[in-house]
Amino acid sequence: MSAFHWDAAAVRAVVPLRPDGTPRSVADHERAYAAAVWSCLAEPGDAVAGALIDALGPDDALREVIAGCRGTLAADAAGIPPDELRAGVRRWQPRLEAESIAFALHLAVSAGVHLVTPDDDCWPAALDDLGPHAPVALWVRGDPAVLTRLDPAIALVGARAATGYGEHIAEEFAADLAGRGVAVVSGAAYGIDGAAHRAALAAGGITVALLAGGVDRPYPAGHTDLLRRIAASGAVLGEVPCGSAPTRWRFLQRNRLIAALGDATVVIEAGWRSGSLNTAGHAATLGRPLGAVPGPVTSGSSAGCHRLLREFDARCVTTSDEAAELLGLDAAHGSEREEREDDRTGERTRVSDALSARAWRTVDDVARRSGMATAQVRAHLGMMALEGVAANEGARWRRVVAGAGD
Amino acid sequence: MSAFHWDAAAVRAVVPLRPDGTPRSVADHERAYAAAVWSCLAEPGDAVAGALIDALGPDDALREVIAGCRGTLAADAAGIPPDELRAGVRRWQPRLEAESIAFALHLAVSAGVHLVTPDDDCWPAALDDLGPHAPVALWVRGDPAVLTRLDPAIALVGARAATGYGEHIAEEFAADLAGRGVAVVSGAAYGIDGAAHRAALAAGGITVALLAGGVDRPYPAGHTDLLRRIAASGAVLGEVPCGSAPTRWRFLQRNRLIAALGDATVVIEAGWRSGSLNTAGHAATLGRPLGAVPGPVTSGSSAGCHRLLREFDARCVTTSDEAAELLGLDAAHGSEREEREDDRTGERTRVSDALSARAWRTVDDVARRSGMATAQVRAHLGMMALEGVAANEGARWRRVVAGAGD
Repeated sequence: MSAFHWDAAAVRAVVPLRPDGTPRSVADHERAYAAAVWSCLAEPGDAVAGALIDALGPDDALREVIAGCRGTLAADAAGIPPDELRAGVRRWQPRLEAESIAFALHLAVSAGVHLVTPDDDCWPAALDDLGPHAPVALWVRGDPAVLTRLDPAIALVGARAATGYGEHIAEEFAADLAGRGVAVVSGAAYGIDGAAHRAALAAGGITVALLAGGVDRPYPAGHTDLLRRIAASGAVLGEVPCGSAPTRWRFLQRNRLIAALGDATVVIEAGWRSGSLNTAGHAATLGRPLGAVPGPVTSGSSAGCHRLLREFDARCVTTSDEAAELLGLDAAHGSEREEREDDRTGERTRVSDALSARAWRTVDDVARRSGMATAQVRAHLGMMALEGVAANEGARWRRVVAGAGD
Repeated sequence: MSAFHWDAAAVRAVVPLRPDGTPRSVADHERAYAAAVWSCLAEPGDAVAGALIDALGPDDALREVIAGCRGTLAADAAGIPPDELRAGVRRWQPRLEAESIAFALHLAVSAGVHLVTPDDDCWPAALDDLGPHAPVALWVRGDPAVLTRLDPAIALVGARAATGYGEHIAEEFAADLAGRGVAVVSGAAYGIDGAAHRAALAAGGITVALLAGGVDRPYPAGHTDLLRRIAASGAVLGEVPCGSAPTRWRFLQRNRLIAALGDATVVIEAGWRSGSLNTAGHAATLGRPLGAVPGPVTSGSSAGCHRLLREFDARCVTTSDEAAELLGLDAAHGSEREEREDDRTGERTRVSDALSARAWRTVDDVARRSGMATAQVRAHLGMMALEGVAANEGARWRRVVAGAGD
């Protein structure tokens, strides 16, 4: 193991100012640097690291690990069972190398990537709902101030192997919600994610992409330009340091960040075993509203959505208004399918049924045909005449306008 | 009002034997005849008629009405509030005409239509769940013994304005369920209903059509041949007497019979205000399981199904196996989408992620890349070597088979 030392110069380069533009104190620098180091040491979602950092702060937690590597680990640190803490140190130790950490920081500086930690005002409080699984820091490509504009935010996710149908829905939802000031959070993958980001950008809204690897490494490569555009007006976020590869584990952990940043998650299209179901699972675990867009049952690309409806009690979402409802927002478009008074039940219907549009009928005849008392029929006919839906010539009646049954 | 009298000759012609082939007693005849008369007097779902018949039997209930028409109504009959009973008599009186009732019976005799009442062994007990809204009798075109073969039965209903998608699903569900001995109940309308009946017939199964009008009047006319085929192996049922027109009110009431005869109801395709939602509402009121098949959110023909999923807590049904599940039947096709062990989470994934398929890596390297302790990594590598998914040359390892992420 290389000797590890505090690299004050490196951290000053990465985090010269707080994201809000104010200078950092020396103590701030130390904590930010320690958070950056932690993002190199622990894999995303490492709850032992999270608990240790929660209890001691990132700087003292890191000193504890360095001590542990030298065999002087305090047995009762942060109330974490000593076995777990020792196992943690064994996990983190292989990565506690000054050179590789310095290299990750160097990559961040080169790429203009910002470090944001829970000490910063722009830290998204929504991430704290992850408890010990919250990230220790975020690496941000783009303006970190965007992180203050994620309320409300919606996670729109789905299959890479999307159909035209799914991409159409993703575009429609993202454009409409982004246009209403809802930030669109997704994972920058091909298919649904890409369609959602693109439509949010086109609508002039805020969109944020969470990457599984380092934010300096556009992934997928085919979305290099899309990610550049997202960073220009929104942000590209990751919790692993620059230069890190997007592994399958990190994809799964990345999904928890998408679910946590969204005030609600909507899965637009997903195969039976799509990774989007993992995002949905995180949203449900966090108690965030979860929606799924149905599709043809003959389409494998909607099978995962139907599974969410069947097995995970997801809300069926068919319009962007219904997606907005998950966020507690009112419908933007009014109630398009406003209920008309349903006159298809009850006595009125029976009287109307008993009238003919062509033949004139007596009240007695209408009473017999409708199975109602004569006096009742007469009362309804009077109302219907006022409304212009029935007409009489003397004692004989006919229907003027008839609604269609189904 | 014409004088009303018991028409013993007419009733003997309609119901010469019980549906099971045994002769009827004189008392039986009287009750069957009275039930037939009641089906002429009261509109479907008339709860006052239902309560009166429940309390007194159809024959004494009818005598009570005849007395009521003469102004000698017993004020406390069957515990029904006198006002409601008097209102009932006023409703029924216009239809208490010997000629028109005799004509309805004559039509039934001519068309070979059977009368089935709750006194008959083949009466479907499921209808009794409707309480005072249960029909007083069923008019049956076809073999009444079919009514004993409706357990289990599924109601498959949907829009007349069905799409190819909806008709395809209706055919698939009906064929599969009918082939498994489930009776398919529907309403003989164009679109979904017709597709379900046809597929059930093609599968050699039992199918039953509920009509809103008289069973001697094929409705819609374009389904005259289909209704003939349904009657030949199954049954065409109605609660209004022969010659009656299918009014909108009767369609809505007919829907309660479909819902009651089905052990579960599945709406396959339905517009936002489809009459199928009325059937679904009856199923829910009866406590019968209710399913809805999702479709594209861009299809108006699925809007009603999505409404059922959103507003009525219907179960999302995507396969005939899932429809069978609503009936408490096991899946016929095994678990097609059987869960494979999900190895995408946990340490194994992280070790696999850290291996390369091309480059050989040391255990220390794999430990660093996976963020795990060396000893743990070694244990996993040992297991993976046994399973053939990792291979080593001395101290260096590589991945042999990699699963695809999503």
